[in-house]
This record gives sequence, C-alpha cells and structure tokens, in this order.
Amino acid sequence: MNTILTCQKKYKEMPSLTNVKKALKLLFKYIYPGYFEPIPQDCKTYLSHLKDEAYTLLHKEILKVCTDSNLTTLFFEQLDEIQKKIEWDVLATFQGDPAASNIHEIILTYPGIYAITIYRIAHELYLLKIPLIPRMLSELAHSKTGIDIHPGAQIGNYFFIDHGTGIVIGETAVIGNNVRIYQGVTLGALSLRKGQSLKGEKRHPTIQDNVTIYAGASILGGKTIIEKNVTIGSNVFITESVKEDTLVVLKKPDLILKEKKQ
Amino acid sequence: MNTILTCQKKYKEMPSLTNVKKALKLLFKYIYPGYFEPIPQDCKTYLSHLKDEAYTLLHKEILKVCTDSNLTTLFFEQLDEIQKKIEWDVLATFQGDPAASNIHEIILTYPGIYAITIYRIAHELYLLKIPLIPRMLSELAHSKTGIDIHPGAQIGNYFFIDHGTGIVIGETAVIGNNVRIYQGVTLGALSLRKGQSLKGEKRHPTIQDNVTIYAGASILGGKTIIEKNVTIGSNVFITESVKEDTLVVLKKPDLILKEKKQ
Amino acid sequence: MNTILTCQKKYKEMPSLTNVKKALKLLFKYIYPGYFEPIPQDCKTYLSHLKDEAYTLLHKEILKVCTDSNLTTLFFEQLDEIQKKIEWDVLATFQGDPAASNIHEIILTYPGIYAITIYRIAHELYLLKIPLIPRMLSELAHSKTGIDIHPGAQIGNYFFIDHGTGIVIGETAVIGNNVRIYQGVTLGALSLRKGQSLKGEKRHPTIQDNVTIYAGASILGGKTIIEKNVTIGSNVFITESVKEDTLVVLKKPDLILKEKKQ
Repeated sequence: MNTILTCQKKYKEMPSLTNVKKALKLLFKYIYPGYFEPIPQDCKTYLSHLKDEAYTLLHKEILKVCTDSNLTTLFFEQLDEIQKKIEWDVLATFQGDPAASNIHEIILTYPGIYAITIYRIAHELYLLKIPLIPRMLSELAHSKTGIDIHPGAQIGNYFFIDHGTGIVIGETAVIGNNVRIYQGVTLGALSLRKGQSLKGEKRHPTIQDNVTIYAGASILGGKTIIEKNVTIGSNVFITESVKEDTLVVLKKPDLILKEKKQ
Repeated sequence: MNTILTCQKKYKEMPSLTNVKKALKLLFKYIYPGYFEPIPQDCKTYLSHLKDEAYTLLHKEILKVCTDSNLTTLFFEQLDEIQKKIEWDVLATFQGDPAASNIHEIILTYPGIYAITIYRIAHELYLLKIPLIPRMLSELAHSKTGIDIHPGAQIGNYFFIDHGTGIVIGETAVIGNNVRIYQGVTLGALSLRKGQSLKGEKRHPTIQDNVTIYAGASILGGKTIIEKNVTIGSNVFITESVKEDTLVVLKKPDLILKEKKQ
Repeated sequence: MNTILTCQKKYKEMPSLTNVKKALKLLFKYIYPGYFEPIPQDCKTYLSHLKDEAYTLLHKEILKVCTDSNLTTLFFEQLDEIQKKIEWDVLATFQGDPAASNIHEIILTYPGIYAITIYRIAHELYLLKIPLIPRMLSELAHSKTGIDIHPGAQIGNYFFIDHGTGIVIGETAVIGNNVRIYQGVTLGALSLRKGQSLKGEKRHPTIQDNVTIYAGASILGGKTIIEKNVTIGSNVFITESVKEDTLVVLKKPDLILKEKKQ
C-alpha cells in the first residue's frame, strides 16, 4: 500500500479535531460569559483561566502546522476585538428577527450567531496564515448549521444571518457593514471548470453596506458589486453589478394552475 | 468589560444544553421503546423509570427560566398524546416514501421523523410558555437535520417530511392534516425589513389538509392560504392564496442548450 | 399501550447507532492513516488492529439484522478496493476546487469527501443486502454534511462534491465517472404521490461521465439520461434527457430593478 493517503505528509502530526473543538468551547464560554456554564463568584479569575486553557490547547495544535511560536499570542491579542464585533452581530440579529424573544435566545440557539462567531475566530487565524485550523473551524460551523463561510471571506460589522441552512460565502467574497442574509444564499464563483488554476483570483462578489439578500438568491462572480442599500429578492440569480438604492426582484414567475380531476 | 454579553441577565442561570440533550435522549427512548436500547424484561418499570429520569432532568432546567413549578408536570401529562401523534407521523412517512423498507428504518434513520418528534415535544413546551428550552430543542433538530421548524408553528396529524435539508417553517405557520413537504421548502414571511416591529403578527402561511409541497418551493405571507388537496410543484414561489384541488407548477423554464465546442 | 411503536419488531435487538459510529471512526482511521491520530512506529500492526476492531464492532451489529455470518467478512474483503476509490475522489476534489490548499485540507475538512467516504462504505453494505445499517451510515453523513446520498445509488470514480448542503441523490440514481456536483443539487424522482407502490422502479436519473451540475439544479425522473460531457447550469430544472457535449443553462431570468424611494 503506497497511496496518496499514506504517503509523506507535510506535517509530522495533524491538528486534532477533538482539541480544536475543546478550544472552541472554551472560547465560547469566554466570549459569552454565563451562557454555557454559570459564572463563579470570582468572574475575573474565571475568565482569565478560560483564556489560558484555550491558549494552551490551541497553541499545541497550531505548533503542529506552524513554526512561528508567536502566532497563538497574536491571535489572543485580537480576542477582545473579536468579542466586540460579535456583540454587534448579536445586536443586529435581535433587531433583524421578529421571532427573537431576547438576546439570551439568540446567543443560546441561533445558528447564524454560532456560525458568525466561529467565522470571526477562524478569520483571524486565517489572517495569521495558520493552515488547516481555520477550515477545521469553519467546517465545524458548516456541519452544525449548514452555513458555509470560508474563513478567507471579509465580513463587516453588524452581520445578520437568519435560518442559514445552505448559505455559501466563498473565500474571496467581501461584505460590508449591516448586511442581512437569509437561508440558501450563495455568494459564489461564476465558473469553476478551471479548478486549481483559478487559485488566488477574486472569484466571489462584493456586497456593500446595508444590503439585504433574501432566501435562495445567488450572486456570482469576482467582478460583481452589489452597491449599498440594495435589496435582492428571493431566488434572484445575478452575475452583474447592481447600483446603490436598488430593489432587485424576479419577475413574477409564470405559474400554471390546473384544477385536479375529481 | 461591560458589554451586553456580560451584563445583567434575565435568569440567574441559563438552561444547560447538555441536560436538555440528555432529557431528549430519554424521551426518545420512551417514545420509541426498544429502538435506542434493548427493552429489559420488565418493560413497564423500564418505561416509568425513563419518564421519571426525563422529568427530573427537564424540571431542573425549566425551573431555571420559570417560576411556576407545575409546568413540567403539565408537559408530562401530554406525553402519551404526543407519542400517539408521532406514531401517525411515522405511518404517514412509511406510506409516503417508496424508498422506505419498513417502520424500523424510518424510526432509526429518517431525519424528517427526528425533526417532527422534536417539534411535537418543543411545541408543547412552547404552549406552556416556557422560554428558551423549546428553541434549544428546535435548534438541536435543525442542526442535526437541516430542518428548521419553529416550535410556535401549528402542525396537524400525519405530517411527512422527506430528505428535509433546508426546510424552514416559521413561527406563525399553520399546517393541516396529512401534509407532505420536501427538502428546501420555505413557509416564510413576505418581508422582514421591519424586524422586531412585526412581532406577534401572523407572518407565515396557512396550509390546509392533504397538501403536497415539492422540493424548493417557497410559500410566503401571513395571509396566504393554500387550501385543501392542493399540490405545489418544485421551486414554485408563491405569495398568494390557492383554491382547493389545484395543481400549481412553474411554467417550463426556458432552457438554453448549446453544443459545446469540441 | 399497544402501538406500532411498541409492537412486535422484526429484530430482537436494533443495531446500536453508538457502535455503528465507533466502527465508522475506526474505518476512517484505517482509510486515512495518520489523519485522525498519529501513526505509531509499527504502522502495519496498527492498521491491522484498526481493521480487527472495526470488524468486531460491525460484525456484532450486522448479526442483529442478518443471519448470514459471512457478510462482515465479505465487506472487509472490499475495504482496500473502497480505499482506492476514495483516493481517486480525494484527487478529483483537489483538482476541482481552487480554494483547496492541499490534500490534507480536503481529507480533514471537506464535507464532500466525508459524505463520499461514507457512501462508498454504505454502498458495499447495501450490495450485501444488509438492512438498516447502510441507511444509518448515510444519515450520519447527511446529518453532518447536509448531503443526502442513498446507499443504493451507483456512483462511478473521481466523484467531486463541493459545499454540498442540500444535495439529494436518490436510491436508483446512476452516476458515471468524473462527475462534479455542487450544493443544492437534486437527482430525484418525478412524482411521489404513489408512495410505496413505486418501490423497486428506477425513479432517479442517470448521469454519464464527465458531467458537471452546478448549484441548485434539479434533475428528475428515472428515464432522464444526462449524457457524457454535459454541463448543467445553476438552478436548471430538467425532467428530460440531454444529449452529450451540451451546455444547459436557464434563460436569463427577467429581473425587475426599481430605484428605492429615498
């Protein structure tokens, strides 16, 4: 047996998904104190312990794929900034969804917030050029929520995802502030037949501030720019840019209604 | 640090997802005896133990978010009724799917039945006005199956979901008896730009008895009524009511077929 | 209480999902050595231990639903062949996706590869006519990835799935070599109103070699044949056969663009 599956690997040991998951759980407890376990009397010590534990776990996995031993520290320096952004996402979610009873419900149960939280963590690790681990994180989110956000995507503040199943946001997508996206939306590439040779090109669209994209819409292509304040209706399929302050909807589809034979 | 994430919470302690999951596992063993572990000799004692254990676990979590200590008892009084309804859903699933070999396969492997079972439990807790826990349950189902049924939706008997990934059924949807729904169907709201200010309004459609809705169809709006015996074809997008005994399909889409250059 | 849920079962004991999952984990470690735990010094002994452990676990579950005690052995005789096919799928995935950094990323994080690996295992068990367990496996994949491949489907070599959420491949679908499928694609049945009475018929399409099917397309019907080298565009809905070397796309949808009132 001498297949690509067993052949020489780039790393002596692969990052452990179990440990990455454990670190993620600790980060969730740190970012959302009191939501996933009660806060003990001494909150400050508790939080600093969570951070230390997460650091130790993540550092061990990062060293399996990186030689620069400063990367984990650089990531943890961003953690409070990440938390601030996530707080804005939680607020945007509450404001956006009439079914939300309160902030607690959003933090404990909303798949969009779960996926965005992981994205914001994975994106920082991606910016530090850490291999494999950002994608392991984004696939954890994808698996749990059906929301597939590549860690390379650039996403602004106050991002709101509702329901979320089937959403795909590609590696080179750029999204502004205050954008709302519903289930089944694809921000994708135009054609993929060239495969690996497209690597590095901007293949996915740019979405500017205050854009709303309803369920099932597909926006494709690296040169496609959806300008600010645009609303894209359900199931719209678009491969060209749209000017600001525009509402784009499908022409009413021609439906055929037949009476059933009794 | 003084963010909404750490600020005063409505509850001293949040319900534990781990315990909610444990209670759910016990309820599945109770509802489907012998499917998730062998039944010991003394079946009656076994079932009553399962119920007691589930009660204890769930009661502890409910008391974290409710002051009325009768709610758990009220829920458990409904459990045999819930089980009866689930049995009908299992039958409807068997009758509806030509790929189903037998009832066992449906109970052990069908995501639709998993999601409907959780919905029927979560809906009872929702009717008792228990906060957070119904949504925690429905998101467990959503995460595992891609089927997102809000616990507030009202769903009749003999409900059949096939495949299911991407289905969204909104909080104020009303569904009759003997309805069949396929993957990617949305029973949703028309416009959500007003967010929280829409709270409490009927935003999602009414689906009457014996309606079949094929994959990818979207039915939107709180005033939209799909009357009995209607069939909605794949990918139909509809925001208006449909009279009984009607078949609604998309006009054949204009496809462009080009021969590829050799 | 005397419902279908408690009534006489076909098997004395149901296969345990926990044990099926454990066996699957061991098979993943065997198929992808070094990816899910480090390989010890003596690789050969390690691999043979993994295989033995997986055999023991799976054999116990298979005997719960089968009387022929040779079936597990017959399955394990196919394991190296399965591994070879999976290697080709990994290669096809790397060649097909410009976002893939290397083979390691694909094996550790790609949901398509996870679902295809499970499909190739489940399909062999299906061919041996083992009940329940193939569907338990395919639903594990469906739950984790949103990709729903019936174990009965026949799929050729070099199969590539990207993103994958919402894909449905029916029991009687036949897929050739070197086929690429994106998220939300359905290879489904035309009409299901007849339910169980359709059992055994070829209800799902045939896809020949070198076909690419982009996101959201639906190809329906047991007599529908998509011939070799065809490309099916996003969201195409098709119920008829397509000749070889054809590109099929939707006519540009009529979009309505309105300027929003300021």
